[in-house]
Amino acid sequence: MEHEIYMLEALKLASEAFFDGEIPVGCVIVKNNTIIGRGRNRREHSNSAIAHAEIEAIEDACRRMNSWRLLDCSMYVTLEPCPMCAGAIINARIPKIFYGAKDEKAGACGSVLNLFEERFNHRPQLVGGILRDECSAILTKFFKSLRTES
Amino acid sequence: MEHEIYMLEALKLASEAFFDGEIPVGCVIVKNNTIIGRGRNRREHSNSAIAHAEIEAIEDACRRMNSWRLLDCSMYVTLEPCPMCAGAIINARIPKIFYGAKDEKAGACGSVLNLFEERFNHRPQLVGGILRDECSAILTKFFKSLRTES
Repeated sequence: MEHEIYMLEALKLASEAFFDGEIPVGCVIVKNNTIIGRGRNRREHSNSAIAHAEIEAIEDACRRMNSWRLLDCSMYVTLEPCPMCAGAIINARIPKIFYGAKDEKAGACGSVLNLFEERFNHRPQLVGGILRDECSAILTKFFKSLRTES
Repeated sequence: MEHEIYMLEALKLASEAFFDGEIPVGCVIVKNNTIIGRGRNRREHSNSAIAHAEIEAIEDACRRMNSWRLLDCSMYVTLEPCPMCAGAIINARIPKIFYGAKDEKAGACGSVLNLFEERFNHRPQLVGGILRDECSAILTKFFKSLRTES
């Protein structure tokens, strides 16, 4: 149940992004049963290619830990990370990653490729499919609403 | 000569990082012969896993362009980008990347793998080896000085 509880927190952040007109992706970082980082997609509003949920959560957690190394932490993110975010996870040395829905077009944790299985100096544990249906549903609803509007 | 001139600007930023005790990597982004983004490594001082030269330069350029899409831009970076930065380049749709030295251990533009040759929705042009010796030399000097200190 623990994984589902944290993924629900990530889903809350995805839902904030949804109501703000952003692709709904949310992320939390957990250490010792406490959420130490939160993030959600803000690409359109912040006009920044960097403003993905995972990056915001990592920056938040690094600030709180006062360290660029997020040892003993777990990340929960509603969508499979893209190459930038999977790379940021490697750079921050996060040991465990839990994601919800697969990203067949841009996922770098098994879909297009798996950065965590390459010859880099950190290989996180990876579990996909946590609340997959809920994490997919909010994305489907978002893209459907875009098509209705246009 | 144009490429060398912009790489020298990136080297200036790398040298700032050097004197600040950071791994010396610098980056500029150019559009219409004007530098629109500058960045250098600040990982240790900012205590952030995200604080690479390319990320700072992309954020700077996005702010200035008021857009997450950096179309018609070229990036000059002293070291081959890591997976996070190569992924950020893909996300920002930067069309041309020029780097100096190879990063055999963590490079994601040909060394460990090449993210720009994968099935993502953007494939930048890539040229390595611009002022390679100068870009390598500052890194070698930095790591040598670390060993002398310790």
